[in-house]
Amino acid sequence: MNKKAVVLLSGGLDSATTLAIANAQEYICFALTFNYGQRHSIEIEAAKKIAQSFNVTEHKILDVDLTQIGGSALTDQKINVPDAPSDGIPDTYVPARNTIFLSFALAYAETIQAYEIYLGVNSIDYSGYPDCRPEYIKSFTQTANLATKASVEGQNFIIQTPLMYMNKPQIIQAGLELGVDYSLTISCYQPDMNGLACGICDSCRLRKIGFEQGGIPDPTLYL
Amino acid sequence: MNKKAVVLLSGGLDSATTLAIANAQEYICFALTFNYGQRHSIEIEAAKKIAQSFNVTEHKILDVDLTQIGGSALTDQKINVPDAPSDGIPDTYVPARNTIFLSFALAYAETIQAYEIYLGVNSIDYSGYPDCRPEYIKSFTQTANLATKASVEGQNFIIQTPLMYMNKPQIIQAGLELGVDYSLTISCYQPDMNGLACGICDSCRLRKIGFEQGGIPDPTLYL
Repeated sequence: MNKKAVVLLSGGLDSATTLAIANAQEYICFALTFNYGQRHSIEIEAAKKIAQSFNVTEHKILDVDLTQIGGSALTDQKINVPDAPSDGIPDTYVPARNTIFLSFALAYAETIQAYEIYLGVNSIDYSGYPDCRPEYIKSFTQTANLATKASVEGQNFIIQTPLMYMNKPQIIQAGLELGVDYSLTISCYQPDMNGLACGICDSCRLRKIGFEQGGIPDPTLYL
Repeated sequence: MNKKAVVLLSGGLDSATTLAIANAQEYICFALTFNYGQRHSIEIEAAKKIAQSFNVTEHKILDVDLTQIGGSALTDQKINVPDAPSDGIPDTYVPARNTIFLSFALAYAETIQAYEIYLGVNSIDYSGYPDCRPEYIKSFTQTANLATKASVEGQNFIIQTPLMYMNKPQIIQAGLELGVDYSLTISCYQPDMNGLACGICDSCRLRKIGFEQGGIPDPTLYL
């Protein structure tokens, strides 16, 4: 019997690859996307196309408005997206974002009786967000397994992070082998209304270098 | 200098008492209430009155619609609120609710530079929800301290649960000493539109017994 998995799908390169991996591992995939008031909400349209291309069982798009809290260039229009790499954690950090997203993923998983959650975090080619690190994921998993009725009743939740130790070229290569159409994905934090990427934000930078270093043709359309 | 604290305020007896305690400990209180699609959303009006009565610095009411996920008698109108104590965890359990609420509290706290979060959970006179237990709170705290930019930069978040080991009469007694007007609070899971309590749900039952056992006049208006 195939097992169910919840796959967090932003519409970007990493989460599309993560979905492809869960799909290749023959999970019954339930994709989960957040409409959180992000500046780059066009990524939700990308997520829909990616979910469709992998024929997921359900694609849930949750409205969780983080502009009610703000505190990030992605959720507060008054804070600009940095156009150069920053020294520390950049202003695109969204307070507690992965904790919020994983909490909802956990609630969704428990409700549909899925016990694995796939998340495309990466600790190699990343922006330094603390909630992408392996020690964070390990701790959240422990918390999840104390939090729920399902875990009290003996189920164990696992958070699968297959990209954690891959570099960007390796991620892209894996995705290509598994049929990801990267032209559907949007990584840019500030794309225009047609989905054209800025080419200068942190997320564009990491993506661009990934294709270049891997010697892989980049299908991204830039402004 | 007084320190800031985020206080989760549902509008019920326990969270009102928790706010009174944080207030007595001279924190600058930022109350946080969730409009989550709960059956008993009239508790939000109670929360407003309680927040006002303690003159909080800010009372943030977040829209976080958990009916998008369902899976509980409180967030799915098709599931009835049990009218008798259940053997295990009752159907009023909301999947991952405290994890979701604490995640938002963490995001809010980080944004306003508060590093203490007050939560009125209790492991004595409670419904058996797993995310009210001390081991859960301890684990969430660890996760919070790996999740955020603030913690990477050296701040330590603390989740304060002053009611954890108190029984219901002790909680009520403490609240009375600190000026809580319990007639403002609503604990019932299925009050009528005027806020009259059913008297039979788990939450009413625990509250009622608390006043009785403490020999304290119960100001609750029942149907």
